[in-house]
Amino acid sequence: MRIGILTGGGDCPGLNAVIRAVVRKGVEHGDEVVGFRDGWRGLLEDDAVPLDLRAVRGLLPRGGTVLGTSRTNPYALEGGAERVLDTLTRHRIDALVPVGGEDTLGVAARLSEVGVRVVGVPKTIDNDLDGTDYTFGFDTAVGVAMEAIDRLHTTGDSHHRTLVVEVMGRHAGWIALHAGMAGGATVVLVPERPFDVDAVVAHCLHRFESGYSPIIVVSEGATPREGGQVVATGERDAFGHVRLGGIGPRLAALIEERTGREARAVVLGHIQRGGTPSAFDRVLATRFGLAAVDAVHAGLSGVMVALRGTDVVPVPIAEATAQLKLVPLERYAEAEVFFG
Amino acid sequence: MRIGILTGGGDCPGLNAVIRAVVRKGVEHGDEVVGFRDGWRGLLEDDAVPLDLRAVRGLLPRGGTVLGTSRTNPYALEGGAERVLDTLTRHRIDALVPVGGEDTLGVAARLSEVGVRVVGVPKTIDNDLDGTDYTFGFDTAVGVAMEAIDRLHTTGDSHHRTLVVEVMGRHAGWIALHAGMAGGATVVLVPERPFDVDAVVAHCLHRFESGYSPIIVVSEGATPREGGQVVATGERDAFGHVRLGGIGPRLAALIEERTGREARAVVLGHIQRGGTPSAFDRVLATRFGLAAVDAVHAGLSGVMVALRGTDVVPVPIAEATAQLKLVPLERYAEAEVFFG
Amino acid sequence: MRIGILTGGGDCPGLNAVIRAVVRKGVEHGDEVVGFRDGWRGLLEDDAVPLDLRAVRGLLPRGGTVLGTSRTNPYALEGGAERVLDTLTRHRIDALVPVGGEDTLGVAARLSEVGVRVVGVPKTIDNDLDGTDYTFGFDTAVGVAMEAIDRLHTTGDSHHRTLVVEVMGRHAGWIALHAGMAGGATVVLVPERPFDVDAVVAHCLHRFESGYSPIIVVSEGATPREGGQVVATGERDAFGHVRLGGIGPRLAALIEERTGREARAVVLGHIQRGGTPSAFDRVLATRFGLAAVDAVHAGLSGVMVALRGTDVVPVPIAEATAQLKLVPLERYAEAEVFFG
Amino acid sequence: MRIGILTGGGDCPGLNAVIRAVVRKGVEHGDEVVGFRDGWRGLLEDDAVPLDLRAVRGLLPRGGTVLGTSRTNPYALEGGAERVLDTLTRHRIDALVPVGGEDTLGVAARLSEVGVRVVGVPKTIDNDLDGTDYTFGFDTAVGVAMEAIDRLHTTGDSHHRTLVVEVMGRHAGWIALHAGMAGGATVVLVPERPFDVDAVVAHCLHRFESGYSPIIVVSEGATPREGGQVVATGERDAFGHVRLGGIGPRLAALIEERTGREARAVVLGHIQRGGTPSAFDRVLATRFGLAAVDAVHAGLSGVMVALRGTDVVPVPIAEATAQLKLVPLERYAEAEVFFG
Repeated sequence: MRIGILTGGGDCPGLNAVIRAVVRKGVEHGDEVVGFRDGWRGLLEDDAVPLDLRAVRGLLPRGGTVLGTSRTNPYALEGGAERVLDTLTRHRIDALVPVGGEDTLGVAARLSEVGVRVVGVPKTIDNDLDGTDYTFGFDTAVGVAMEAIDRLHTTGDSHHRTLVVEVMGRHAGWIALHAGMAGGATVVLVPERPFDVDAVVAHCLHRFESGYSPIIVVSEGATPREGGQVVATGERDAFGHVRLGGIGPRLAALIEERTGREARAVVLGHIQRGGTPSAFDRVLATRFGLAAVDAVHAGLSGVMVALRGTDVVPVPIAEATAQLKLVPLERYAEAEVFFG
Repeated sequence: MRIGILTGGGDCPGLNAVIRAVVRKGVEHGDEVVGFRDGWRGLLEDDAVPLDLRAVRGLLPRGGTVLGTSRTNPYALEGGAERVLDTLTRHRIDALVPVGGEDTLGVAARLSEVGVRVVGVPKTIDNDLDGTDYTFGFDTAVGVAMEAIDRLHTTGDSHHRTLVVEVMGRHAGWIALHAGMAGGATVVLVPERPFDVDAVVAHCLHRFESGYSPIIVVSEGATPREGGQVVATGERDAFGHVRLGGIGPRLAALIEERTGREARAVVLGHIQRGGTPSAFDRVLATRFGLAAVDAVHAGLSGVMVALRGTDVVPVPIAEATAQLKLVPLERYAEAEVFFG
Repeated sequence: MRIGILTGGGDCPGLNAVIRAVVRKGVEHGDEVVGFRDGWRGLLEDDAVPLDLRAVRGLLPRGGTVLGTSRTNPYALEGGAERVLDTLTRHRIDALVPVGGEDTLGVAARLSEVGVRVVGVPKTIDNDLDGTDYTFGFDTAVGVAMEAIDRLHTTGDSHHRTLVVEVMGRHAGWIALHAGMAGGATVVLVPERPFDVDAVVAHCLHRFESGYSPIIVVSEGATPREGGQVVATGERDAFGHVRLGGIGPRLAALIEERTGREARAVVLGHIQRGGTPSAFDRVLATRFGLAAVDAVHAGLSGVMVALRGTDVVPVPIAEATAQLKLVPLERYAEAEVFFG
Repeated sequence: MRIGILTGGGDCPGLNAVIRAVVRKGVEHGDEVVGFRDGWRGLLEDDAVPLDLRAVRGLLPRGGTVLGTSRTNPYALEGGAERVLDTLTRHRIDALVPVGGEDTLGVAARLSEVGVRVVGVPKTIDNDLDGTDYTFGFDTAVGVAMEAIDRLHTTGDSHHRTLVVEVMGRHAGWIALHAGMAGGATVVLVPERPFDVDAVVAHCLHRFESGYSPIIVVSEGATPREGGQVVATGERDAFGHVRLGGIGPRLAALIEERTGREARAVVLGHIQRGGTPSAFDRVLATRFGLAAVDAVHAGLSGVMVALRGTDVVPVPIAEATAQLKLVPLERYAEAEVFFG
């Protein structure tokens, strides 16, 4: 068989491990593997590269994606789908393995409907894709954020300062929740629950009274509320706040003003998504890649591989991407015992 | 309520995180928590320490266990069980939370049968306890082993040497399997499958021919076979081999002899079980601790907390410890594509 | 003898290692060691704690300072010096070991002039103290920044984005220079050389043309220039820019605007100064502590210990703090070969 | 100019950083750089590869050496020197930059005497080369060993076991000394001072009595003494001890036997010399590479670059390699305060 592979959307530690696993497993089956560059752009513009054992040597520990990535959506372009199908035909691709998030998998599902054999591999560093227990990259991001929090504990206590750590998580607070629990943060603020600035300030004052310094973990997508109103996020742009580091530095400024004590922000940004994957993510990404090739050979299509407990299983893409996986109230409540 | 807690068996990264979570959650419920030192010995000899918020401050990232541990079994001692019950009565303990492996939980199950309210927390760095998807400490151990393998790749290739990494795993090869997959080892040898020394030697020669150097991950409990016979492990003791690093250095010596090229062994030993837990293990250990207190307040007994998918649930101890969780053949086969 | 010790100014990985070494060495000499809390405040307000072997157990790997720190200056307070001298007399202190930067050592020098036996230990994470080759904490900060840069390479290339990393360094660019060299940054901007924004933008465009993504390391104290003029830093305050992450995010915003491609900032902030010290810093801090006790017993005063090559030697405080150690032009030029 | 470069002897983290720096700086000068494979073998057999900017991209953080290495000595082969000179002529090499230890630099010095322009770069992970304050790779090795010791502290104390860590250092104990100081080991055993087994056993018993567990760091080249006699190292071979992990496991076995308590060994082996270099080593290796090209262009020969304080300077090879740099007694004594 000839298997095509591409990576779309934001990059994630583990993408290269998936590519390597697909090639290693494919070669064992006697398949040929073709990589398309920069997500769907590679299929639109026929930018392809053959992937053999040599091409994937040394890829396992490397962050990023050797195939490149983009946010190109063929269905948003006039004649885009046709060009994708043409390219697939030209390369005699029997099955396509797109690795990506909601958007990439959405395109995959539509191609599957028109007869392309497609087996997706889910990817989101925010871990907000329904249908799989975990996605690779998430554990690495949590680890990077936890190490940062670990480092802040000693310096926070030495100086009696508030420290605010802004982590990734636009719609879902999984990274903040796990990193906050793992690092022993004193408050975790997630997009799922708009937060009251004054309640956070009160918490900080309470911590200082107990002789300790507050460490606050905040998702980039968390939204502050004042007097019961979500603070209009429109002003953000006017003041360029998002560019200037977003919610973390803003929150630190507010806390400093209202507590009368220094507050400092750390913005981890892209160091959460770059670099070598953790062991958990390398194993998960590798198993996803292997399972995708198995699914292809089992004749499946319109599915993505997913982790359920300790098993990797195929699930329908449509089902798995129907809704975002948000932090449920009870998981957030579980962590609240540590805020106080 | 008054809750007793103890840690038994080999230490594991995450034990202190469990202790902290039990205290934090207990205090929220208005409970008092009492720690018993060195596993069941603390209950036999009434060696107890009250645990309040101050006592658990800073524990989350610390390896080892502040309560100490031992392999003492009260049922192996004349009148042991009675002394344990006496101590529990003396301290007015309403519920006991033993954190440990098969042995510790076995004692817990028996105490539960005579009326003690017991909620166990499973612990095994080898991840070989049935009834829970993962135990804390395992992810940390895999991470340590993977980092070692990462480091060996460059030096192996620069010198055209065979490198053998001995990892933990007496009966089950989980650490070897995951670390080997994550690190890109070229052969993984596990206790579940006695291995043929000459097949390993042949693999090494094959790797050298392809221009690369073999990296072999071997569980401490893996057993070599020669000519279809498991090599008698009795001689080990006679020659003190186990003390001298065990299977890893022995295998390296055999490979060096039979390939005619240098082979070197790394014995990771206790660095796999010491030190700060990974984010995964800190979250899991914390959730186990929280769930144990919840189970106590729900009136459960004779259960242990367990990870199933992303949920932490109570399961009967008896059921969960009925048999070891070995690496199934299909999981091992999944990885074999990378040996070649 | 009775030796007093205090830590002043910003905290640094290695402070606890100094405290431990002073106590271990002092005890060997038969000395008693007394710690004063929060820098000079502890001497002003007689806030003291005896330090024995037990008190320093486990301190070596811990970040921060168990003695706390402050920026209190006794000479800035009416009668401050007298109160310090009174406290020293009350505790029968024979010699004082202040650990700190320019300010702390300045007070030490003045006390020495009025007859107090003082042996200082230099501390500045920015490495800008003249008279010593290195100060502890610097190597750790460089390591944290380098790891961040390492992580950014893969994600930068995958997305064709500019990434800006803001590191510590108010007056001297040592952290930026070393982290930038170690991490393979494409431009390093230091306080010693005001930089031209458009030259940086031109560099970014040039990098994109070569197919790679720019990674820019900028010291917090670096100052941008436009049209030959240093951009007035007064506006910073008006716009609260310093609080909002400072130069890093501002520079990213400018680059994004002028290159027309996404630019993102990482602000490492306090994670550079928190957490466990590197091996280099632990050895240096330990040797500084040992040498300080040796200097005390040798009857020296008005000196600080300093690293010269591989030797730790006493040097006059006045001489060592006469001027800041800036990055010399030739060291900066040495690195410029990598910008291009 | 045309500059040749090769790497000889054992590999070290930082070799690739040297290669990259030589190429980057050379290209800036308008030079062409040619790499010879596997040390002097590449010059003997004319195995060369041109090195341009593309060839060294991404090399900075990579362990090992892309040029490969060997222990080939052209002067040990009939006509070897002539073949080396022929190859240099054939490639029109104006200057040669050999990166290596005592052996490699010895060949370099002899070639310089017959008129080849040679600027060496010193390399020894053991840090035992006289004439330079530090060599790259050493700091990385110390860091790996320190992290291992950090991990052992918690598990040692939890189980009341002796833990023995065997580190590199055949003739000089620098790695053991620095890692032991940085990790808080309780005894450090170095090749420079044959040690008394019973003194070590007595130390372990003393530690256990104080309630703590001993952690012993031992150089691979340290030699035990019994009753005033250095234990004949001949028996080692008879029992295959060196292959079986060497002094570490043997010492652990002796301690277990004589203290009556469990003792375990960790053999770090090649993980100390593999993997990504520390920031210190990357900066040092890079500066060595840059300075070598500068020295070439300054017309120097028969020199190697060396670190003196914070400066990188050229020193005569002959002088720098005249004797090994051993741990001086006073440096060892400095650390002894921590054994007790």
